[in-house]
Amino acid sequence: MTRKKIERTIYLEDVPRQQALKQLLSHFRMPREVEWLPTVKALGRVTAEPIYACLSMPHYHASAMDGIAVRAEDTYGAHEQRPKQLVEGETFEYVDTGDPIPAGYNAVIMIEHVQELGEGKVQIIEPATPWQHIRPVGEDVVSGEMLLPQGHVIRPVDQGALLAGGILSVPVVKKPVVSIIPTGSELVQPTIDVTPGQIIEFNGTVFAGYIEQWGGSPRYYGIVKDDPEEIRAAILDCVRTSDIVLLNAGSSAGSEDFTVHLIAELGEVFTHGVATRPGKPVVLGKVEDTPVIGLPGYPVSAYLTLEWFVQPLICHYLGVSVPKRPKLEVTLGRRLVSTMGSEDFVRLNIGYVNGKYVANPLTRAAGVTMSLVKADGLLIVPPESLGYEQGEKVTVELYKPLETIRKSILFSGSHDLSIDLLSSLIKERDQDRQIISSHTGSMAGLMAIKKGETHVAGIHLLDEESGMYNIPFVQRYLKDEDVVLVRFLQREQGWIVPKGNPHQISSVQDIVDKNLIYVNRQRGAGTRILFDSLLAQNDLSVNDIRGYEREVYSHLNVAAAVKEGTADVGLGIYSAAKALDLDFVPVADESYDLLMSREFYESEGGQLLLAVMVSEAFKIQIEQLGGYKVKDIGQVVDLFSADLF
Amino acid sequence: MTRKKIERTIYLEDVPRQQALKQLLSHFRMPREVEWLPTVKALGRVTAEPIYACLSMPHYHASAMDGIAVRAEDTYGAHEQRPKQLVEGETFEYVDTGDPIPAGYNAVIMIEHVQELGEGKVQIIEPATPWQHIRPVGEDVVSGEMLLPQGHVIRPVDQGALLAGGILSVPVVKKPVVSIIPTGSELVQPTIDVTPGQIIEFNGTVFAGYIEQWGGSPRYYGIVKDDPEEIRAAILDCVRTSDIVLLNAGSSAGSEDFTVHLIAELGEVFTHGVATRPGKPVVLGKVEDTPVIGLPGYPVSAYLTLEWFVQPLICHYLGVSVPKRPKLEVTLGRRLVSTMGSEDFVRLNIGYVNGKYVANPLTRAAGVTMSLVKADGLLIVPPESLGYEQGEKVTVELYKPLETIRKSILFSGSHDLSIDLLSSLIKERDQDRQIISSHTGSMAGLMAIKKGETHVAGIHLLDEESGMYNIPFVQRYLKDEDVVLVRFLQREQGWIVPKGNPHQISSVQDIVDKNLIYVNRQRGAGTRILFDSLLAQNDLSVNDIRGYEREVYSHLNVAAAVKEGTADVGLGIYSAAKALDLDFVPVADESYDLLMSREFYESEGGQLLLAVMVSEAFKIQIEQLGGYKVKDIGQVVDLFSADLF
Repeated sequence: MTRKKIERTIYLEDVPRQQALKQLLSHFRMPREVEWLPTVKALGRVTAEPIYACLSMPHYHASAMDGIAVRAEDTYGAHEQRPKQLVEGETFEYVDTGDPIPAGYNAVIMIEHVQELGEGKVQIIEPATPWQHIRPVGEDVVSGEMLLPQGHVIRPVDQGALLAGGILSVPVVKKPVVSIIPTGSELVQPTIDVTPGQIIEFNGTVFAGYIEQWGGSPRYYGIVKDDPEEIRAAILDCVRTSDIVLLNAGSSAGSEDFTVHLIAELGEVFTHGVATRPGKPVVLGKVEDTPVIGLPGYPVSAYLTLEWFVQPLICHYLGVSVPKRPKLEVTLGRRLVSTMGSEDFVRLNIGYVNGKYVANPLTRAAGVTMSLVKADGLLIVPPESLGYEQGEKVTVELYKPLETIRKSILFSGSHDLSIDLLSSLIKERDQDRQIISSHTGSMAGLMAIKKGETHVAGIHLLDEESGMYNIPFVQRYLKDEDVVLVRFLQREQGWIVPKGNPHQISSVQDIVDKNLIYVNRQRGAGTRILFDSLLAQNDLSVNDIRGYEREVYSHLNVAAAVKEGTADVGLGIYSAAKALDLDFVPVADESYDLLMSREFYESEGGQLLLAVMVSEAFKIQIEQLGGYKVKDIGQVVDLFSADLF
Repeated sequence: MTRKKIERTIYLEDVPRQQALKQLLSHFRMPREVEWLPTVKALGRVTAEPIYACLSMPHYHASAMDGIAVRAEDTYGAHEQRPKQLVEGETFEYVDTGDPIPAGYNAVIMIEHVQELGEGKVQIIEPATPWQHIRPVGEDVVSGEMLLPQGHVIRPVDQGALLAGGILSVPVVKKPVVSIIPTGSELVQPTIDVTPGQIIEFNGTVFAGYIEQWGGSPRYYGIVKDDPEEIRAAILDCVRTSDIVLLNAGSSAGSEDFTVHLIAELGEVFTHGVATRPGKPVVLGKVEDTPVIGLPGYPVSAYLTLEWFVQPLICHYLGVSVPKRPKLEVTLGRRLVSTMGSEDFVRLNIGYVNGKYVANPLTRAAGVTMSLVKADGLLIVPPESLGYEQGEKVTVELYKPLETIRKSILFSGSHDLSIDLLSSLIKERDQDRQIISSHTGSMAGLMAIKKGETHVAGIHLLDEESGMYNIPFVQRYLKDEDVVLVRFLQREQGWIVPKGNPHQISSVQDIVDKNLIYVNRQRGAGTRILFDSLLAQNDLSVNDIRGYEREVYSHLNVAAAVKEGTADVGLGIYSAAKALDLDFVPVADESYDLLMSREFYESEGGQLLLAVMVSEAFKIQIEQLGGYKVKDIGQVVDLFSADLF
């Protein structure tokens, strides 16, 4: 963190994405190099020219059946009452399927219709028509016929047709070489041994994978430091041996973002900055007639811009069209705000709830790789839109097959590590089904059930007045809804503290007395309600708590803050403390239950969830996690029995 | 063709396909072997268990912006009228995106909002809120979080998340080894040097390609002769080293079909014969607890049965679900007859004509590989159906992307080699567009335009009375339709004869006088109409022509029959004779024109077709084919001008 001279002489533009792409492609009439491959090795490759058969298939008149070859003329008049006799070698020959028709014969009679008389004689009771049961020369392929056009991606069945047509080798378009240059002094190769400030270089692996899938040949150059000399050398080295060159990152306008300057110096910059969120800081240019593209460093930005600009370049080179994802109309489960003037790319989870596809936006932070891993679909909000209201219908591109989305169990509400285990066990029983969970907190989960945005909500809501969990909240907020509350886990909440509990925390009063830094959960989270009730019980105010304003969204994030040392203590569940090897001081046992609509409860997915929940396998895994009791698990709570009031 | 003892003691069953599959899968609880791969090499592989992060991402609190790290408390009260000064090293530090937040600081201010005063001092005019522009530890991934479930096919973005989460190697399911044993004494390795009776072994290559794409590891055993001893040895060799064993063919009930006997002898046969057309003669069984499957020899049967039984076995092993193809509702362009009691699998071409998707069945012959190569979709006719009428709506599985199908130009009518050239040139200008042609003959093409089943019909219909081509037919049959007739090619029709014209044919009278064998075209073909008019002109009858009853469907098939020697002469176009290196005796010049609806003519596809037709590139290629004149090409014929009558 030494002081640096900050120079900012250039600014990012806001070029519309499609315009930037069109301009990029217009600069390159790529030299489509051709290579000849043995047909058996050409799977997935793109034909460089139309391919014509040089052999007919079949290449001789072949019997289509097991039977006898005859002259149709010899069989005329055969009848049940007047069978015709034929003599082997004179008026018939035995043939099997695929055998050539012996010279002079012009029809085949199926063996099932032939009565054998012995001594080389047979009789038939039906005449044959000329050419019956014969596959004539060229039935499948005629020599000279076009088998495949140019620009065709060779499938296994195409290989079959090529070989049948006597094509033993095929001209295919060479895979374009795409060099990947990761730049950044902070980058390190994948390791688990990292120190603060070091960033694991994984974008290059992701790029390589997509390039491979799109038909290119990725070449990983290796990490280059933030040094203009070294980056310049790498660019010059790559443009001479590659068809496309990628730099990642350094594409923005910061003090160490050299990409745009170097491309401008060595060649030409077409675009710096596109009107998208995320993905804006992209550089499109060329050096020595090779496209050179600077991609942003944040993973989500990087992969989106790769798809926008590098995939079309590869397809352009190969002479194939850019494949499109299937689309689906969905109902937005939440309101979505967008900025005017730029396209917004929003990752979404999608589920089939109450007869419609409901989509809930995932985090929009460009640094969150998991938002792409978890996404079922992508919504592109056009530049002129300010966003959409909850309940509005929008069209999204799908990342996953519709059948899988249709079977997903949407889970909302309070976070718990056991939900992932449930999902795994469900997927074991039904490959297509899993739980898609979003950690929104108990209250948000309860409201999501009310609004029909989710199948299941995990809730642990303590009613201060009655001291009772969950039931009073359901009665209060969902009294007109047909819902089912299922007992799930009894779990321990407690203080998550560093190993050895250095501040000897045992109560909320300790946090205040010792002036410790607390890490809080978001509004509406059951854990926050529990903490607030602890404050109330001890006559403490939120102003007494340092760090009360710092909100995180899951037990694991609380534990991570403690682990990192930016908080001394947080409230959370045992399994989160255990996962990060922290200590845990129990505070309360709570009821963590599952709330669902009756419709889902009674559905195939709901019943599978129930079955897995009460299975022995789940109990064993829950025990390994620790901090839970499974009493009454799977039992339906009687929400409106009189004794609750 | 020596006499064989035909023994037929077994018969094929008619087991419903789904029942046979269920029974097959129920026999195998496959040992899902696990292997550990470096994450960077795991693309496309299937996770063998859930994967949990062992590193948080980011693993330190990181600046999300280029700017300065501050303590939020120090910035409170900053205002445009009352800026706050901060001192480097005391109350702020410079940070770039990704830098760790220096100890003691808890917020970042973007560099754009910082005014530099020099000498290590800056001023700000807005306060920071705690944790602003900081990516806290675990924002993306928290150590202990589940990154991927088991049974997940690893995508590039998943590799990114794994590496970010410190997962450098992953447990994946081993690819199941699928051995392919081609059997048949008639089989030869791909070659263009074949003699009658030899069959090129290409099914094995096709199988290997699909197995690869489905996630298996294909192993090609090599051709085994039709000898029970050799086949038995191959099976035993393979079952011990493979997870699945395929035999192809010999799966039927013929005299040399040993598969079912050998599997029964060495293990157990579950099913012999399924109720499908094609694909019936399949054998499902096991030997030493390894699935052994006998696939039929005809290519279409072989690839369909592979998909029905081998793909589910591979997916079962891998623990993933069988992917489904997208579906589409289409209108049948032609009547389709099906047999009761068996599922029929019909390959179709599909095009978007007059606002609806129209599907036309391709040949149903199981030996025609090209019917799968050319298919846009597959219709499964259930066992209880007798078929569908023309115009009925049915749902099909798609083999090609809908965008491609939507842009296809459906071509019907008379066959000509120039159509393939047109298609290539169209595809060169628009990757997604090509001509899908079916050779139905001129009259059928004309009627397909009338019925709205096709975009374009190629016709060359000689009106005997007027001696005029095409126009009288359009006037007669399509007088109420808004159609456009476009001049295409003037082409030579003539006698296609063996090299050197051994029978010295120069007229139709020669064929009769010399008692030669003729190969005819199907009813409604323009060439047949021409031949019939030649007969009429010479006062000859169809009974005078040997072979008149043998109908083939294209010029190339006519040429193939002459080439093979089963006909002495046929009528056809010059380019077909040339393609098979035959001689050609000109008979007539004819107008081969393109008929289309006005709607298509005016559409983007129609205009592209027109543009390509009149292009220099097309003219050059047509000249190379030979036998054509391109006078007036692309001109619209005035169909109803007075002087035609």
